[in-house]
Amino acid sequence: MSESLPTNIAIFGPGLLGGSLALALRKHQPKAHLRIWARRDSAAEEVKQRGLADIASTDVRTVCDGADFIILCTPVASMLEQAKEILSASLATDCVITDVGSVKGTVVNTLDPVFANARAAFIGSHPMAGSEKAGLDAARVDLFDGKTCILTPTLFTRDVALAKIRRFWKSIGCRLLEMSPDEHDHNVARISHMPHLTAAAVAIAALKNDPGALECVGNGFRNTTRIAAGDPGLWSGIVWENREEIITAVRAARDGMTELLAMLEKVDEKGLRRFLDEAKKLRDLVPDKV
Amino acid sequence: MSESLPTNIAIFGPGLLGGSLALALRKHQPKAHLRIWARRDSAAEEVKQRGLADIASTDVRTVCDGADFIILCTPVASMLEQAKEILSASLATDCVITDVGSVKGTVVNTLDPVFANARAAFIGSHPMAGSEKAGLDAARVDLFDGKTCILTPTLFTRDVALAKIRRFWKSIGCRLLEMSPDEHDHNVARISHMPHLTAAAVAIAALKNDPGALECVGNGFRNTTRIAAGDPGLWSGIVWENREEIITAVRAARDGMTELLAMLEKVDEKGLRRFLDEAKKLRDLVPDKV
Repeated sequence: MSESLPTNIAIFGPGLLGGSLALALRKHQPKAHLRIWARRDSAAEEVKQRGLADIASTDVRTVCDGADFIILCTPVASMLEQAKEILSASLATDCVITDVGSVKGTVVNTLDPVFANARAAFIGSHPMAGSEKAGLDAARVDLFDGKTCILTPTLFTRDVALAKIRRFWKSIGCRLLEMSPDEHDHNVARISHMPHLTAAAVAIAALKNDPGALECVGNGFRNTTRIAAGDPGLWSGIVWENREEIITAVRAARDGMTELLAMLEKVDEKGLRRFLDEAKKLRDLVPDKV
Repeated sequence: MSESLPTNIAIFGPGLLGGSLALALRKHQPKAHLRIWARRDSAAEEVKQRGLADIASTDVRTVCDGADFIILCTPVASMLEQAKEILSASLATDCVITDVGSVKGTVVNTLDPVFANARAAFIGSHPMAGSEKAGLDAARVDLFDGKTCILTPTLFTRDVALAKIRRFWKSIGCRLLEMSPDEHDHNVARISHMPHLTAAAVAIAALKNDPGALECVGNGFRNTTRIAAGDPGLWSGIVWENREEIITAVRAARDGMTELLAMLEKVDEKGLRRFLDEAKKLRDLVPDKV
């Protein structure tokens, strides 16, 4: 197996995900030649000082020449430009390019054609790993351990590229799921994007006009609203990329709250009990952390 | 200090909170004589078999005779009946009675008068400790470690009783807050009861019509909806006890979601960014777990 893992790996963007990926690769694939691209000189310098990579540079070709696996851990908005630059480098034969973004439809539709005529293949990935913290300082070697990574191959994805990307994520401890980019965006709108926006609405409703409740906060509130501390720039990007699906999911949650409010106002004891019973029954289906 | 801790302590209800309290008292107050009242013979028997108490019984007087500290860890609905029975026992001088319920106004208003003319005092407590799990099997010796316990004294509370209850909760590791029962219910509606109901609405909206998203679940969803797995009977009791305050808080959250939905539909990028920025700013005020 280990012979078929990538040997020259380029990571774009040394933030929380890119940095954690570098740490995990150093541990699980110590023989891999690791290259990190950063937008700013100072970020590339920091990667060098931490010894996270064999090459750290702001130059795409320096990082990509000879690479047989590339992971974009950069904002979706900059990926198309990066993809074009990557194609100008001397990539290894059968290089696979992937990303780690939270939305897959737009990214795959944009990047698939860019690489379609090259000797390289793009396949979308979404490792369900993260934190409300951002940046290289928050990176952790075990961020991907036991986490689910969703791969979104298309009808055009070649088997050899799919096999390679599967081996890559498995090597750093991920459990794999595969579905189409659209199916991904539909599911993730409901179990990640909508809950994020709801957590933000809860944090505002609870604390906005009267932060006096702050001192009473327990772990219930900490957990329920934790993701609301996520990076607003990152999250608004995600929201606009997956807007239609998110609107449907947020509307379902909002309508549920409206029904709930009616039950509270009418003192509908049976209705509330049914609501709480149903929520518990569904939540109990969620597997514990692996 | 340790001389002034209670010596004969009765716990009503060996569930998650009562059981964890017994474990914590065995650890932190090993000299205390511990008595546990259970509604069912089989529950009293289990307490005995686990060695959690010196006395375990379904008889109130057996448990309360000589007690100088009593904690009601039973449903609010049964507390008034228990309080009357407790008064028929031969309590120690200056016995303090408290509870661990999530709503304080109704409980304190009901129980204060019952004990007002006795040589005993009732003071409401709300340790902000719990779990989505219930029952003695879920009890943990460290459940109260570092947790906030809100005390709700009234104008009638005697200093000596307040001093005693403070020492009690501190002895098992709690950090104390004090406020009126009404202030407690106002705050807790916003940072506990409303977030609970919202988590239930999110679990239903995400999973009801299409549990296919289940396999994509990450820790964000796990955390955001964890409390929705709480006991529906317990939670509907809480909701009806604190209905007015909860309606106000749920309405604020629901209105926030409606605003959010309008921003998504209008592609109001500035509005969404303001919303996410505000949520992050408020959530960042929440202190980390102690």
